[in-house]
Amino acid sequence: MKRIRVGFVGCGIHSTMNLYPSIPYAPIDLVSVCDLDTERRENARKWFGAEAAYASIEELLAGPPIDAVLVCGPPDLHRSAGVAALRAGKPVFMEKPPAENLAGALEVREAARASGVICMVGFMKRFALRYREAKEIAAGPDFGALTHVFFKYSHWDMPTPHDMLMYMTVHPLDLMRFFLGEIERVTIDRVERGGQSAYTLVFRARGGAIGNLLTGAHQPRLKERLEVVGEGAFVAVNNLVELEYHRRVEARRHFTNDLGDIDLVRPDFAIPNPNQNTLFLQGYADELKEFASAVLEKRAPSVTIEDGVEAMRLMELMERTALHASYVRSGEEWVEG
Amino acid sequence: MKRIRVGFVGCGIHSTMNLYPSIPYAPIDLVSVCDLDTERRENARKWFGAEAAYASIEELLAGPPIDAVLVCGPPDLHRSAGVAALRAGKPVFMEKPPAENLAGALEVREAARASGVICMVGFMKRFALRYREAKEIAAGPDFGALTHVFFKYSHWDMPTPHDMLMYMTVHPLDLMRFFLGEIERVTIDRVERGGQSAYTLVFRARGGAIGNLLTGAHQPRLKERLEVVGEGAFVAVNNLVELEYHRRVEARRHFTNDLGDIDLVRPDFAIPNPNQNTLFLQGYADELKEFASAVLEKRAPSVTIEDGVEAMRLMELMERTALHASYVRSGEEWVEG
Amino acid sequence: MKRIRVGFVGCGIHSTMNLYPSIPYAPIDLVSVCDLDTERRENARKWFGAEAAYASIEELLAGPPIDAVLVCGPPDLHRSAGVAALRAGKPVFMEKPPAENLAGALEVREAARASGVICMVGFMKRFALRYREAKEIAAGPDFGALTHVFFKYSHWDMPTPHDMLMYMTVHPLDLMRFFLGEIERVTIDRVERGGQSAYTLVFRARGGAIGNLLTGAHQPRLKERLEVVGEGAFVAVNNLVELEYHRRVEARRHFTNDLGDIDLVRPDFAIPNPNQNTLFLQGYADELKEFASAVLEKRAPSVTIEDGVEAMRLMELMERTALHASYVRSGEEWVEG
Amino acid sequence: MKRIRVGFVGCGIHSTMNLYPSIPYAPIDLVSVCDLDTERRENARKWFGAEAAYASIEELLAGPPIDAVLVCGPPDLHRSAGVAALRAGKPVFMEKPPAENLAGALEVREAARASGVICMVGFMKRFALRYREAKEIAAGPDFGALTHVFFKYSHWDMPTPHDMLMYMTVHPLDLMRFFLGEIERVTIDRVERGGQSAYTLVFRARGGAIGNLLTGAHQPRLKERLEVVGEGAFVAVNNLVELEYHRRVEARRHFTNDLGDIDLVRPDFAIPNPNQNTLFLQGYADELKEFASAVLEKRAPSVTIEDGVEAMRLMELMERTALHASYVRSGEEWVEG
Repeated sequence: MKRIRVGFVGCGIHSTMNLYPSIPYAPIDLVSVCDLDTERRENARKWFGAEAAYASIEELLAGPPIDAVLVCGPPDLHRSAGVAALRAGKPVFMEKPPAENLAGALEVREAARASGVICMVGFMKRFALRYREAKEIAAGPDFGALTHVFFKYSHWDMPTPHDMLMYMTVHPLDLMRFFLGEIERVTIDRVERGGQSAYTLVFRARGGAIGNLLTGAHQPRLKERLEVVGEGAFVAVNNLVELEYHRRVEARRHFTNDLGDIDLVRPDFAIPNPNQNTLFLQGYADELKEFASAVLEKRAPSVTIEDGVEAMRLMELMERTALHASYVRSGEEWVEG
Repeated sequence: MKRIRVGFVGCGIHSTMNLYPSIPYAPIDLVSVCDLDTERRENARKWFGAEAAYASIEELLAGPPIDAVLVCGPPDLHRSAGVAALRAGKPVFMEKPPAENLAGALEVREAARASGVICMVGFMKRFALRYREAKEIAAGPDFGALTHVFFKYSHWDMPTPHDMLMYMTVHPLDLMRFFLGEIERVTIDRVERGGQSAYTLVFRARGGAIGNLLTGAHQPRLKERLEVVGEGAFVAVNNLVELEYHRRVEARRHFTNDLGDIDLVRPDFAIPNPNQNTLFLQGYADELKEFASAVLEKRAPSVTIEDGVEAMRLMELMERTALHASYVRSGEEWVEG
Repeated sequence: MKRIRVGFVGCGIHSTMNLYPSIPYAPIDLVSVCDLDTERRENARKWFGAEAAYASIEELLAGPPIDAVLVCGPPDLHRSAGVAALRAGKPVFMEKPPAENLAGALEVREAARASGVICMVGFMKRFALRYREAKEIAAGPDFGALTHVFFKYSHWDMPTPHDMLMYMTVHPLDLMRFFLGEIERVTIDRVERGGQSAYTLVFRARGGAIGNLLTGAHQPRLKERLEVVGEGAFVAVNNLVELEYHRRVEARRHFTNDLGDIDLVRPDFAIPNPNQNTLFLQGYADELKEFASAVLEKRAPSVTIEDGVEAMRLMELMERTALHASYVRSGEEWVEG
Repeated sequence: MKRIRVGFVGCGIHSTMNLYPSIPYAPIDLVSVCDLDTERRENARKWFGAEAAYASIEELLAGPPIDAVLVCGPPDLHRSAGVAALRAGKPVFMEKPPAENLAGALEVREAARASGVICMVGFMKRFALRYREAKEIAAGPDFGALTHVFFKYSHWDMPTPHDMLMYMTVHPLDLMRFFLGEIERVTIDRVERGGQSAYTLVFRARGGAIGNLLTGAHQPRLKERLEVVGEGAFVAVNNLVELEYHRRVEARRHFTNDLGDIDLVRPDFAIPNPNQNTLFLQGYADELKEFASAVLEKRAPSVTIEDGVEAMRLMELMERTALHASYVRSGEEWVEG
């Protein structure tokens, strides 16, 4: 078996703009689609060449044979369709967040553990081209030990504070874990203005590095910036697509601006090829490749429901913090301290 | 009739990465596909949900009913499949260049004129989001009369000088006409190094404005920059996606850096929506919308085979210039002078 | 009296490159200079047209009549020469930090309070063109209440952790107070790598806003970035010279990239005038203007030894924090809590 | 003799902001200053520590002994004071342009040739840090033969077309010669709008490379950009201070964005040291060092009145071109052809 046959649950705008179009880049054959809305599922079927379209996950599971299920819709659909597919023994790829709250995420995890099949959560930023390059640079011998990770993720106002966490904050929380590794302490400061929250989170990783996440719903536009500091070296990714690597320099060169100090990686958008295509720049194509490959190789994918649960745990801490609090890890839980 | 049914000739990498995925954004139903390569046409059929796949344009035209034909492949395929479709009375959208040389482009034009149906050439840069915005700014009342248009389009080495013109230079030549309008004089300077050409072209437009195109095959990467100057105002698009509008300022403010002098338009690539999607940023989605809409409204599209012929005429001048020459328009032809 | 006559203590590289050359932009006449090093003081006298050069502050105070004293050298010189001048009843401008430690800064403050004359501390970043513009934007009616201030100030390795704080960190600590106002709580996280420190500080201001300072000695080059968030509006200054103001937009425009959303202010370095001159961009010229004007108007300058003491208090907290601690204000002191 | 003693003619704003403050970085002692305006010359004397101030070049030449004369004021002052100093056997550094027209520049050259002493023209852009680095990169073995030089220099409206050429265009004309070497052909296209001119010039250098200068008085702000192309390599300097070097890459890497493809050199403006100081970034400090060193070593400086004359010859061609003309070199003259 070199390719997988999948059913896709959810035919909304995000799915059809970003996930379905990524399928041709992975060893995935789209077999069936599913959506409550007739027009949406018919469009998805037609545009992306599925054999069948259904109104429910049950029908989809009973339809033409599939090796795995992809789910992308509202968070509670991720949970309900995800659990149904897992119970049917189908490996699942689900968009983040894995559920509408931590309890739901734990339910998905339980179903995945019980079934013993793969449950990947679509934290596509881990697969974004520049972030993968930044991770590689940070792991290289010239970079030194990881010292500081900064991430900014700010955006417009959201209907509710819970929506902010669920639809937006879940991204940077996972990415901080991706770059920092396991976290032992988190300090949260929060400010409310006009019914919207802004946060600064400070993380302490097991390895000693500190992380700093700045996020909030008071900024026009959606802005994202990553900075990773080693011992004398530095890599930043600005606006998802532009990377600067500031190499370690000898002390005597600190006051100069020399050729070779800064490496720049930037797409030439005039070229319509994968390295400039937003499906690759944003990580959608490669997360599906990873899922297909994990299913084919019967191995855990690089990001699973366990990571989904961890992000939800941090979201819960943020939700419960009024102004300022510090939490340390105790087993699976976070406790104030 | 609110949508058009199309057959698509050509299932190569560029088609399947950029044009087929743009179809869902236009009122277009993909009915049939065509490619000599079995695997390619089967993939395109499957990925994009076509009813049928064929090995020849004749079969495609004889297959399920279609309202129009899209062609994207090597230049001679544009010509041959385009002419066949036009002769069959089908409106045609073809990738640029419209043929492998000027004679071929004239043949396509002849077929289009004879059939009386639409023949659109896919100069997608005219539909790129930032270029359309730049055009609107330049047409606004604050901009003043068009004075100067600069375009840079430089790239890596090409197999032959003819390939450079055909696959690369055709883009900026059309874009210069898009911004400048009809051209009355063109001066060409060329330099050869290592078997590759670099050019500077200076255009004089009917309205008096000058244009300046800098293009060449001696640069690493593919770099693109547009600058349009009015009377005291300026708009530039860098790397296709970032626009700066430098507003006209009062004389006394020339030495200051004031808020409001420069407007910046830049995608936030963290948002996976149309304004950040390369299909829209590069113009593919909107050129197909224009084609479908022209077919539905039975009107000429905004860019036709006439524009394709004009670009080919300029390419021919470039090819024939050894070092330096100046040409003026005489009827349909360009003559030295 | 329209101008002031000053004696300048300290003729080192920083003084002669940045402060002496700023004097012609202020209503200041340089009368005398002072340095232990004969060549340095003779050069300064000659280059900047002083009447006399001395080896000690006592001689300088006993020399030609002066209205005020400027001091720029090692931190203990700021303190010792500053105190001597203040005791002699001369208004003082001193480079930051005001002393080698908090005790020294308190000694300077004591001398200033006792003498009743001006003691300005040279936090020049408050006078940098872009930071003043950012402050004005943040105070405007379109910006909404201050929500979040972020400052990054990272740099190369320093001889000791105390040197890092004294010569480098003192800058951003003052700037955070400039933008945030009075601070009620500060949480400090620190990491050591290779004998160098990196810090994340989180501030809570009296008005409720949060601040976030990221600083460390593990990065090549010296990088500085300011971001200020209001309620739906945002202003950032990158690399000291480039400002972006992201205006508040209507909800429906969040997904678009519109003209007028982002204002950009950037020097055109090809013009050799004040707005592009680093003496103005970095704040040196305007801090001297403020000092001269405060002396002439017999009023407190906008930044005084009180601010110097506050910065030193925060530095002391940083020095005393091993890994993680939170401090709240109690009278003049900071206590853990 | 290790230092030179100079008299400086001209105490206006540009001189006192950019040239006088650069003197301390060169082995130059300022002895005397000269200006018709009493306040200006007294300020310059005081601020920069000259021994004497005069109202005329004759008095200055008759004053305390000097080794050389610096001149900076209106173009006719460059000529008249320059010629007077040269006739008195004094080496001269003069701001560009060397005179108010070509005849005046030839008069200066005649005086210099007759006296046999140095006459340097202050084309400071040749000494700007980034331009020197770009020149070095272009001369390196990895760059290949020079192929294309592009320079953009656009600015606000000027009182007259002659003023535009004299005060503005003289800069890029010299810089094109600096990068291209001797020029054999120049084609000029000009457009008039609202009493202001815009030009595109195309140069052919003796070595075969082409140059392209885009300049005009219809743009808000002052914008400058240099691009130099070799054989597969590229270096650009944007806004005078930021350099990008795009290295030659292997063919197979053309479609990737790899680390090491682009080197970036950019000042960190937070550091107040020479590499970030506009006197060095704009070239003023280093042009004075070159002048002093040429005087001390009794050698021709790297840029002389011969270069001044050449720039004036090109300016004259621009002035005489109405719309479009091409000129070739014939001895010392340019003739249409």
